[in-house]
Amino acid sequence: MRPGGYRGGRGAPPAILRPPAVRLTPRELFVLFAIGAVGGLVGDAGHVQAGTTTYLDDATPFVWESALWFPVLVGLATASVGELRLRLGPPRPGFDLRTGLAAIAAVLAIYAVTALVYDEPEGPASVLVMMLAVLVACWLGGGMPELVCGVAAAIVGPLAEILIVELDLAEYSPAADTLGGVALWLPALYFAFGFVAARLAELLVARRAG
Amino acid sequence: MRPGGYRGGRGAPPAILRPPAVRLTPRELFVLFAIGAVGGLVGDAGHVQAGTTTYLDDATPFVWESALWFPVLVGLATASVGELRLRLGPPRPGFDLRTGLAAIAAVLAIYAVTALVYDEPEGPASVLVMMLAVLVACWLGGGMPELVCGVAAAIVGPLAEILIVELDLAEYSPAADTLGGVALWLPALYFAFGFVAARLAELLVARRAG
Amino acid sequence: MRPGGYRGGRGAPPAILRPPAVRLTPRELFVLFAIGAVGGLVGDAGHVQAGTTTYLDDATPFVWESALWFPVLVGLATASVGELRLRLGPPRPGFDLRTGLAAIAAVLAIYAVTALVYDEPEGPASVLVMMLAVLVACWLGGGMPELVCGVAAAIVGPLAEILIVELDLAEYSPAADTLGGVALWLPALYFAFGFVAARLAELLVARRAG
Repeated sequence: MRPGGYRGGRGAPPAILRPPAVRLTPRELFVLFAIGAVGGLVGDAGHVQAGTTTYLDDATPFVWESALWFPVLVGLATASVGELRLRLGPPRPGFDLRTGLAAIAAVLAIYAVTALVYDEPEGPASVLVMMLAVLVACWLGGGMPELVCGVAAAIVGPLAEILIVELDLAEYSPAADTLGGVALWLPALYFAFGFVAARLAELLVARRAG
Repeated sequence: MRPGGYRGGRGAPPAILRPPAVRLTPRELFVLFAIGAVGGLVGDAGHVQAGTTTYLDDATPFVWESALWFPVLVGLATASVGELRLRLGPPRPGFDLRTGLAAIAAVLAIYAVTALVYDEPEGPASVLVMMLAVLVACWLGGGMPELVCGVAAAIVGPLAEILIVELDLAEYSPAADTLGGVALWLPALYFAFGFVAARLAELLVARRAG
Repeated sequence: MRPGGYRGGRGAPPAILRPPAVRLTPRELFVLFAIGAVGGLVGDAGHVQAGTTTYLDDATPFVWESALWFPVLVGLATASVGELRLRLGPPRPGFDLRTGLAAIAAVLAIYAVTALVYDEPEGPASVLVMMLAVLVACWLGGGMPELVCGVAAAIVGPLAEILIVELDLAEYSPAADTLGGVALWLPALYFAFGFVAARLAELLVARRAG
């Protein structure tokens, strides 16, 4: 490094203009994991009680209504989306506990709606869930990073659940399995989940300053 | 006109204080028509699939679940309410794509709710739809022009549907036909529709400046 | 009191810094009572029509679907929560009719949802109602006084209804009576009610200045 010079090759701007990417601390990752795991347990219990989904494999231990691996996967997905959000750009500032609580409540409300409508006609049930997901996304807002988190969750989440169905670990009710074995509204639920997990990651970072 | 005078009789203020009424361009009218027609198709498919409504006349061509004239009428109604909004006063400034998307999602969500609850007890189902419409109206806000658009839609829309029922073109399920052959919650759905169409017209005008 | 001194013992600040507690006028108390009584009638009619609740005692006169004492109790509860709110601290300033209308619509919408989902699986139905109540609380916001109003309503309301059930005046459907004879989602409904009644009291006080 030259005397008086600065780090950052390849034409990068001076470090002072390029803040180091924010990363989630292990503790913050665990908070996201815990929120996701508990939320997954609550939502999945609704699906199982309503009959939307049924576990086919009793080899793994169960927690409440869920096979142990389900809340673990949702928790990991929550932390992963949060980490993805921070790698896509600087998070929005401003901590607000109410926004975080409302975001969690919104996605759990949609989760509960999917359990309640799964045996209703698939068309309007799916339209309702999709429009609720759009409303959550419009409310939480943001920009391209948040949209990428929502779309990524809407693609990866249902693909993972299709794999779970293919592996005969669980199945969706015949009234809600038209999307390769999973429900037509599942991408919309994950879309809202992606926006919420991204927002929670931003709020956790903003809370450091508070 | 007197030299140095100004247009506008009957005590009208000078033209410089009275901006020319904003009108929708043909392109903007078409955008409103298209949003309404597609939204009408989506919502009506939910009603037909759920059994809320049934088409009785197969003489006209069908698009998806709807007789062709239905989405055309909804599209025309959307453009008409938008035009009405601008004639009632200057539109609010400020373009926000998210508000437009959320407004469309909100009215389609209520539309889907009406399909899902039509065979539930009529009292609470109607109260739910009415209160959701009030929430949408309070959220979109505005003033007297927006309220007139909502009320006009809440009156004209159900009257048009009662005429459709009288003409034996379509019918509502016996579980949802207590308002002269149409559902008790129908005015509330149109009330929300009127507020949304008015807001979309404002947003289209505001977008010109952006 | 010393000459030149001021009232207020126990280290209280000078009166000029300690505005006298705001109280609701008899007229404002009556407005809250009327809103609560009418809202209670509308919501209760939904419960009776859906079969969520059934009156067992015909000794008292009925109004619409409700025994007379029910809307009276809800009206008294609304005025009481409003009065409690003002005793807990100075109300937030700013009158907004739309906020008041939306708050009433929100709690009546949740009330209608409880009527529509009461015979659905109790888990997801209760989660939905609880999350909607959280959303209403987060939206209306406030601080400790509002939270106390919500929690107090969530405790006292269901206890009063349990007493009503114990007295054989009314009963909840077997599909919704797991919380000591009342529904599992009942505290959440009252929680939202407490927040709304508190906000209405604040708005009534703020309206005086307008």
